[in-house]
Order: sequence, then C-alpha cells, then structure tokens
Amino acid sequence: MEKDGGGVAAGGWRFQPNQALMAASSLSVRGVLTKIMANIDNESEDTRPRIPLGHGDPSAFPCFRTAPEAVDAVVSALRSGQFNCYAPCAGLAPARRAIADYLSGDLPYKLSPDDVYLTNGCAQAIEIVVSILARPGANILLPRPGYQFYAARAAYNGVEVRYFNLLPESKWEVDLDGLEALADENTVAMVIVNPGNPCGNTFTYQHLAKVANTAKKLGIMIIADEVYEHLTFGSNPFVPMGMFGEVVPVLTLGSISKRWVVPGWRLGWIVTNDPNGVLHQTKIVECLKNYLDISCDPTTFVQGAIPQIIRNTNDDFLRHTISVLRQTADICYDKLKEIDSIRCPSKPEGSMFVMVKLDLSRLEDIHDDMDFCSKLAKEELVIVLPGCAVGFKNWLRITFAVAPSALEDGLERLKSFCLKHSKRSC
Amino acid sequence: MEKDGGGVAAGGWRFQPNQALMAASSLSVRGVLTKIMANIDNESEDTRPRIPLGHGDPSAFPCFRTAPEAVDAVVSALRSGQFNCYAPCAGLAPARRAIADYLSGDLPYKLSPDDVYLTNGCAQAIEIVVSILARPGANILLPRPGYQFYAARAAYNGVEVRYFNLLPESKWEVDLDGLEALADENTVAMVIVNPGNPCGNTFTYQHLAKVANTAKKLGIMIIADEVYEHLTFGSNPFVPMGMFGEVVPVLTLGSISKRWVVPGWRLGWIVTNDPNGVLHQTKIVECLKNYLDISCDPTTFVQGAIPQIIRNTNDDFLRHTISVLRQTADICYDKLKEIDSIRCPSKPEGSMFVMVKLDLSRLEDIHDDMDFCSKLAKEELVIVLPGCAVGFKNWLRITFAVAPSALEDGLERLKSFCLKHSKRSC
Repeated sequence: MEKDGGGVAAGGWRFQPNQALMAASSLSVRGVLTKIMANIDNESEDTRPRIPLGHGDPSAFPCFRTAPEAVDAVVSALRSGQFNCYAPCAGLAPARRAIADYLSGDLPYKLSPDDVYLTNGCAQAIEIVVSILARPGANILLPRPGYQFYAARAAYNGVEVRYFNLLPESKWEVDLDGLEALADENTVAMVIVNPGNPCGNTFTYQHLAKVANTAKKLGIMIIADEVYEHLTFGSNPFVPMGMFGEVVPVLTLGSISKRWVVPGWRLGWIVTNDPNGVLHQTKIVECLKNYLDISCDPTTFVQGAIPQIIRNTNDDFLRHTISVLRQTADICYDKLKEIDSIRCPSKPEGSMFVMVKLDLSRLEDIHDDMDFCSKLAKEELVIVLPGCAVGFKNWLRITFAVAPSALEDGLERLKSFCLKHSKRSC
Repeated sequence: MEKDGGGVAAGGWRFQPNQALMAASSLSVRGVLTKIMANIDNESEDTRPRIPLGHGDPSAFPCFRTAPEAVDAVVSALRSGQFNCYAPCAGLAPARRAIADYLSGDLPYKLSPDDVYLTNGCAQAIEIVVSILARPGANILLPRPGYQFYAARAAYNGVEVRYFNLLPESKWEVDLDGLEALADENTVAMVIVNPGNPCGNTFTYQHLAKVANTAKKLGIMIIADEVYEHLTFGSNPFVPMGMFGEVVPVLTLGSISKRWVVPGWRLGWIVTNDPNGVLHQTKIVECLKNYLDISCDPTTFVQGAIPQIIRNTNDDFLRHTISVLRQTADICYDKLKEIDSIRCPSKPEGSMFVMVKLDLSRLEDIHDDMDFCSKLAKEELVIVLPGCAVGFKNWLRITFAVAPSALEDGLERLKSFCLKHSKRSC
C-alpha cells in the first residue's frame, strides 16, 4: 500500500460539497439546539441537571413512558421472524389498513389502505411531499412561526418559500388575507400544522373551513402536518384537515412519534385525503409512489407491529399523556406570567409547545433570542429554542412536555436568569 | 362541509409532479420486479410456490434466519426504554464506536467513531453520498452492470451518470482504460461494489490497488459499496477499499442487512476512510453532517442494539450463512451449465447473485430479457431480474440466496422454460 499520499491533501481533488446543502441545514432545529448546547461548559462545577425545554421529545421522562402494549407489539413482531425482510415501498398492507381505519374514525368518509403511505417518521414524510412538488419556479406557503424542517427541505429542493403569518393576538390563527396576497400562479401548496408547533394552538373547525376554502380558491393543495393529532387539552377538539378533503386535496402527515411518545421508532405516514381523486388525476400520487421506489423505508418489524399497537393500546395511555400535558401547560403558563420580560399571548391548548415573546427592552446584556438562549444554557443549564429557529426572531419556543418537577425547576431558573439580567429601574 | 366539490376534479389546480422523479424511479430494481410480478395470474390454477430469484433478501428462508443473539440485542434495547428518543443526527455514539472497531479489524489504521455516520440502511447511505456530491454539471462514474439505485438517485439530483464496464471475461474486473477515458474535470466520484452486485465477483487486492491509483490520478473519490462485506466463498478473500484510504479518499457504505440477513431492520452506515483528512479539507464531511441534519434517521433502539449485535453474534452464524451460500452458488452454477440458451461467464464467489447471458438466437418468441422474465414469471412462477434493470440488456441477474430445495426447483423450472421456448434445430 502506498504510504506517501504526496499531493493528496494538498488538493487537486475534483469533488466539492453541494452548496444547496451547505445552506439548507442552518435552518434545522437540531442544528440550532446543538449550537445552544455548545455554550454549556462540561467542566463546570455546576452539578444541577440540564433541563431540556428545547425539543419535543419527552420519552426520557417516566411520566411519558410509552404504553407497554406498544412495546410488546414490537417485540412480538420482531420475535416472529416474519419481518426481517424488505417491505413493499408503500409499506406493509396490514399496517396501511390499520392506519386508514384509525384515521377514518375522525372523518366523514372512509380512507382506503391505498391512501396510506408509510414513512420513516414525519421527517421523511415532509422530505417526500416537498420533493414531489418541486419544479423550477414553484413556491410553497409556510406558516410563520413554523417548524423549519419544511423550509430546509424546500431550500435543498430549490423550492421558493413564502411565509404567511400566524396571528399571536388571534390564538395563532392564519392571516388569511395575507395568505391570499402571497400566492401566485407558481404557488403549489400551503402547510398547516395542527395542533400547532411551535404555537401550541388548536385550530377550530370554522377556521380550518376558511383555510380550506382559501386553498381551493388559490388552486393549491394543503399539506396538513398532524403529528400532534389528539394531543389537545383546551376547549377546541382536534379536527383533522382531512374533514375538508372534498373541498381541497389534502396530504396529511402523521406518525406514532408523539401520541405514543416514541419518536425513535421512526414510523410515520403520508395520507391522501382526497375523495375527489384530484391527486390521482394530477399524477401527484404516481410521483409519490415513484419517490417511495427510490427512498428508504421505516423498519419492517415496526410496520408489522402497527395493527397491534393501534388495537391494543389502552385508552388510558392517551388520557394519562394528555392529563400530564394539561398539568405542565398550566404550570408553564402560570410561571411565565411571573416573568416581566416574557409575554405569553395565549395559553397552550395542544402539542407540547408555547411561543412567548421576549421583551428585550427590559433586559440588559441580551442582544437577541439567540444570545438569550445561549446565556441561559451556559448560566442555568436550561435549554430553550430561540424564536429565530422557527422564523420568529426575539421570541422563544418552550417545550412543556417534561416531568412536572423538572419543568418547575427549569422555569424557576428561567425566572432567576431574567431577574439577573433585567435592567435596574431608574 | 361543502359537498359539491364542483370544479375541483375538473382541474385548475396549480400543483404538478416533479418531472425528475417521474423519470428516476423507472430505474429501480423494485420497480422492475413489480412489473415482472404483475405477469403472474393470481387466479391461475397453478398452485406451485413462487420462487423468488429476483432480489437479495433471503430472510424469509429458515436457513438464512438471523442470529438469535441479534434479535435478543434489539429486544433488550427496546425493553430498556432508553431508546424511544430521537438519536443524534450522526447516530448514537456507542453504535458508531462499535462499527468503527468492527471495520478497523480489516484495516491497516484505526477508524474513529467520528468516521462513522449511521443511516437508514445502505439505501439512505447511497441517497446521502449522491446528494452531497451533486452540483451543476457534475458527473459520476458507475459500473455496468450495476445496482441502479445509484443512477436513480443521480437522475433525481441532476448528476450526470457515465458508465464504465465490468468485464465478464476477466472475472468482472473494472475496465480501467475505459474508466480513465470517461472522466473529465467535472467527474467527482466513482462507485465500486465489492463483493459484487449483480456480478457475484470478489475483487483482488491487486485489482483494488489499481482502481485506487486510477481514482487518485483522476482526482476523484471512491464510493465503496461493501454491503455484502465478508459474504465471500471463493478463492479471493474480501478486501475493503478502505485499505487504500491513504491513496485516495474512500466513502465506504455498508449495513447489517446482508451479513445479519435483516434488510428490514434498516441500519446502515457511511464511513470516511480517509487518514489524510481530504474529506474534511474539502468540506465533504461538513456537507454530510448538514444533510444528516435535515434527513431521517435509523430506528434508535436498533442503533442502541448495535454494540451487542456485533459483540454477541457467534462466528458460527456467519460461517453457516457462507456455507449455505457456497452450496447454493454451486447448485446454481452447475444447473445453469445444463441450459443451452444461458451462458454463465464465471462462478460466483461473493454476494448473492450471478449474472448470466441470454442467447436469444436459441430462443423463439422471446424478444429480450424483459420479455423472458415476464413470460418466465407467468408460466413458471419464477422471478428473475432482467439485465436491463442493472444496465446489461439481454442478461439476467439470478439470486441464489434462497433455500437449496427452492433453488433447485426454480432452476429446474427455468430449464424447462428454456427448453419449451428453444428453437427447434433445423
């Protein structure tokens, strides 16, 4: 073997990185949280536990431990030896049927197993829907604030992003006039996340009907991100966007990650809510199948377990999860009210998050949300997501899906931090 | 809810499918096999079992059942409750370390855990390496015959594909002069698959050294697809391309899918075999990390089980797998020699496949390889991949990784089919 390697490191290599990728990932929540956490001094003498209020993954807390029936279903599928194989591109038929039946329970029409395509979590579902809609010049309408994974994948695929506003003073409803003004003949879709990430809201039936009619008027499809479906604990019940599938074609994205608190199991779906068959006629379904032909799949034995996971999980599990979330949402809302430099426009009613506004005029030595979160991590070992990561500068996204005691501890430290950095009144 | 849907189905919708995707997937093995299997009449009175000699997934056969230690490791990781969470983008650290140690055993230098990036099977590893190298005008060199997933992903990413030949009369070695003639200043990488899919060959140390030196001369990196690593049963031992990482930077792709016969577990990797740090200097590693930030991950509890899967699996398991493959490769080679209209240039020595040439001049009513495979499926319920799916028209790729009795049955039916369709001698 040659040992000199002379000239190799010095260059002359013809490969170079994809520039679209070098730009796209700066938008990711994971990327921003990694930067925030880099501020924590691992050699510090501060032995307090880190409090993760940054991302939506409460699986480490015993009070959010998944249902034992779900674990048993996966073990059983694995031990059967029947699911070590590759799965069909769209997913195993019994899993597709079980998800179709599960989701049909909330709809005025019945989904077919052929409406359901299994994905590696909701992340891959997003990757796929953005990929199939990409064409030169296309643009897509995303909510602001919003989950930036859509924007990252759109940037990677060369799809232009246009942001419509969610209105903090109107319980984060969509600014419909603004939405309409953004669209043009190259607009292909809009994204709506319900229950809301990062806003913690739950849209009413009436508002969703208006959204559907606006999309129909614009001739665009709706991508309905319902990964937090049924995780609601306020006055509005969860209404799936698929309710309006006869008005406008809807691609619904979901997963077992949130309701079963197993984001690491990587099982999600894309569902065509489209009783009029528009997505078939426009060949969107064919394109979706084509993409599935050349992309990776969710783990087969997790697919194999889906019918049992859905059938066997006791209703008490969901009730318990919602009860803990209601409790922690209350703790969060009450505690935040005690902090002068933070304003919470409305009490969260769904998902695992709340958006709050920083009042920088009351803080000294804090330049912006990124600076706030970096210093909070360094000084108090509390991780919070800066609003810039969801397109809302100088706001914060706080996750309340943690154990109540950890949440109280974290919010107390947040309060101390704000007090410590508050401007002395003259 | 509106019920009329008037005008909706009639059009006016502004979305349309991604044309690059509509073209890309026609290249997939899965897509072609689906077409072949569509020829089987499900209402037929032919009750013989279907014999799947089309794809590389023997997991359904008891003689290829995975190691019980591997199943136990996954069950244990799942039941621990520690791996329901999201994993870091590059994968769990203990899994990366275990894979680095495992692969270092065959190398003259030691890999670091930071050289290892976990992926959703080798399929996602291919998706990622093609994506990070994509830039306007770039081209990539692929082997012909070859696994067309690379070409499909390249088409999707707008990367030009140029094919170099593998030489059937030289045990499928690379046509190095032809390779060199193909490259220009826009060539960024070449792909080499060893042990070979679809050719069933195993490259010698000496030949791989020549490939490495050619790539160095051209200034391109090597993508070494070693998903069939250690599945060799001829005279050539498996030599990883990483042996030549000091000559030329190598991205090695692998997975547990083949060695542990668990393609459905979806756990693969990309490894930087690059002791000179070229991939860091050229920012390819940074780009790889960026892509991982915005892509989906392998199931966390499978990642969590990797250290135990590697440590606990008894050597007898690999020896048994290889012994069955050696036996079925022998059966395959001997049986094919009995068929006049099929020529097998060399006995397979690795992977799970053999490439054979159709002599259409000896067959009547058979137009080409696709026609051959379609009629074979319809008349004999035997599934074989037409060469067109691996870029080698009028050849066939036959999988011998099936139970010996099923293989004998399938090849006997193949022989009858060829006899039935052979031209009567004048």
